[in-house]
Amino acid sequence: MPTIYITAPQEAATEIAQTLVEERLAACVNRVACDSIYRWEGEIHTDAEEILLAKTTADRYPDLRDRVVELHPYEVPCIERFDETDIFVPFSDWRTRNVDAE
Amino acid sequence: MPTIYITAPQEAATEIAQTLVEERLAACVNRVACDSIYRWEGEIHTDAEEILLAKTTADRYPDLRDRVVELHPYEVPCIERFDETDIFVPFSDWRTRNVDAE
Amino acid sequence: MPTIYITAPQEAATEIAQTLVEERLAACVNRVACDSIYRWEGEIHTDAEEILLAKTTADRYPDLRDRVVELHPYEVPCIERFDETDIFVPFSDWRTRNVDAE
Repeated sequence: MPTIYITAPQEAATEIAQTLVEERLAACVNRVACDSIYRWEGEIHTDAEEILLAKTTADRYPDLRDRVVELHPYEVPCIERFDETDIFVPFSDWRTRNVDAE
Repeated sequence: MPTIYITAPQEAATEIAQTLVEERLAACVNRVACDSIYRWEGEIHTDAEEILLAKTTADRYPDLRDRVVELHPYEVPCIERFDETDIFVPFSDWRTRNVDAE
Repeated sequence: MPTIYITAPQEAATEIAQTLVEERLAACVNRVACDSIYRWEGEIHTDAEEILLAKTTADRYPDLRDRVVELHPYEVPCIERFDETDIFVPFSDWRTRNVDAE
């Protein structure tokens, strides 16, 4: 079951997290403050950002990814999928119910 | 070697993290503050929580999971297992020693 | 494509994160504040630390790991590799370009 790792500046992170849950693309999103260090056009930058960990299902993942690309202010957003190797079954069921159409 | 991703409200997070290390169910736990956005009974909520990243072994994982379910205040806690694809060997050895019976 | 999970005390975390990006061993590093609970020589400790999530490539991973071991103040640092199951392709391309030799 996919957890999607997304980074975004704070204002965009709020919008992305809210939208993913409102549109049932994720059952929940954990928002974590971070500092990001990266190279852009040859220079090293540090920005305050957030990591979003969006809990979704395999079925909903492609739509979630496309929606994040649409909403994200960066040209090249970090969007990565990680799959767990085991999950507490009631949580898995809850997650599936919360991304299904109403 | 499993890393267990657990979310919990702060007070419960303190108890769970302490207990897992005290009872040798995890060698260490990294606690990270987060905001969680989720849907519960049709409404969208935001709660301040913590993500616990508990470092354990394959042998100890089932007992760790059962203990978290026991301690956790939620009906449906988020408990997910992620396995790394490589690990610094001395850290792996340390982890194994610290979850073995004394 | 590997994400490397490293924990370090704050001062060392700054040096490690900067060095990995400067030496093109990682394209970016996300720094997250955490509290770590662990057992060391029989006693339970809690330390303020950071989790570094270093985004690199399979080719650069061995050099990154060796460099972290070199820079890290601990005898037994936590260094773990996690591989995503899917990635936004432009981000994957950007990452590869930013760890290649100039």
